[in-house]
Amino acid sequence: MPHLFYGTPRNGEIVFDEREAHHMRVVRLKEGETVETTDGEGFSYTCVLTRLKKSEAVAKILKIEKKEEEPSEKLKVVVPIGRWERTRLLIEKCVELGADEILLYRFERSQHSVSLEKSLLVVREAAKQCRRYLFPKVKMVENLDFDEKAITLDPDGSVNLLEMDVSGSITIVVGPEGGFSEREKELLKQRTILVNLGRKILRFETAAILTVGYIALRKQKI
Amino acid sequence: MPHLFYGTPRNGEIVFDEREAHHMRVVRLKEGETVETTDGEGFSYTCVLTRLKKSEAVAKILKIEKKEEEPSEKLKVVVPIGRWERTRLLIEKCVELGADEILLYRFERSQHSVSLEKSLLVVREAAKQCRRYLFPKVKMVENLDFDEKAITLDPDGSVNLLEMDVSGSITIVVGPEGGFSEREKELLKQRTILVNLGRKILRFETAAILTVGYIALRKQKI
Repeated sequence: MPHLFYGTPRNGEIVFDEREAHHMRVVRLKEGETVETTDGEGFSYTCVLTRLKKSEAVAKILKIEKKEEEPSEKLKVVVPIGRWERTRLLIEKCVELGADEILLYRFERSQHSVSLEKSLLVVREAAKQCRRYLFPKVKMVENLDFDEKAITLDPDGSVNLLEMDVSGSITIVVGPEGGFSEREKELLKQRTILVNLGRKILRFETAAILTVGYIALRKQKI
Repeated sequence: MPHLFYGTPRNGEIVFDEREAHHMRVVRLKEGETVETTDGEGFSYTCVLTRLKKSEAVAKILKIEKKEEEPSEKLKVVVPIGRWERTRLLIEKCVELGADEILLYRFERSQHSVSLEKSLLVVREAAKQCRRYLFPKVKMVENLDFDEKAITLDPDGSVNLLEMDVSGSITIVVGPEGGFSEREKELLKQRTILVNLGRKILRFETAAILTVGYIALRKQKI
């Protein structure tokens, strides 16, 4: 399968940044070759590479095609801001598993911070890899407020994942490495549905992958 | 939740190896304290630590309890022998997600090898972590022969994971990093059910976690 690149359309051309130009050189693309590009907004551009330099590249657009529409029912995931490697992995898996929005939240027990810019680059790389034309939105959020249905994974939750009603937009809250604080637990109990994944203890990333993937499958997002 | 240790019962005592003795020292256990131990065969032993040395430990058994029975319907996973980090991760996730047997297989495109002993230690650590009293069996297998229902993850598979019949024992074939060879593909097409996980491209470990976890949930193994 040919590579998918990310670029910005401008006057009949696509402009690629240094990172994409680097990716092109790694896969040994040459000027004059045809490349497929997305703008991350749902469009695919078939274009011919006219200029490939170290810090940028440009291609002429031959064909534009709408590949993905903004979904009416959204799958959002609250990803904890924790150690970067862990946060990075979760962002990557959310992209791969069809999440529409990634909400970065700093739980009370987390001493870490995260760069929005770095997170956006992870989304870009993961989306290119699994050919998502409409990139998930990434936001920092300050509160655990939810407009629609939200669930929290909890071994004591009364609803089993398999029996969960997946209609409408859903937000999945993934807990931080050190667990929720008492205050957060209370708040999530009031504002979200506590969902269990059986009786065994799963590591958080395993539980998160299973839940996001299962709901995405049910909602036909993957 | 208190720690679970692994040891071998012998004449009313439990004998622990160097690895377990090390784990005990790490969590600052002292002689005279009560510890919970499993033999990996489904039993829990409540015992009191009588001797904690660098290379071994011994505890006196106070109570024995059968915690897990050999299941009649088994969940088996063919894990590819590949780069150790990747194979290790898959073994760990299979334990966590309730697999009953882990079948290590070297696919044609793999140049790697694996130590059965190292694999058994990964199973032990993962099982202790998620409190499995009946450890999954680990075997090296030489052929892709299956007595019961077997599935292979394939984007072109005609059955969607959610619609799959999960009754009876099931073997899940997880592909190697470099993909199946043509011969293996043909063989798996004949001998297994090709199952898809939607239309998007998932990384192999993501697909494997989602599939093992989903079937384990449906079969109430987790």
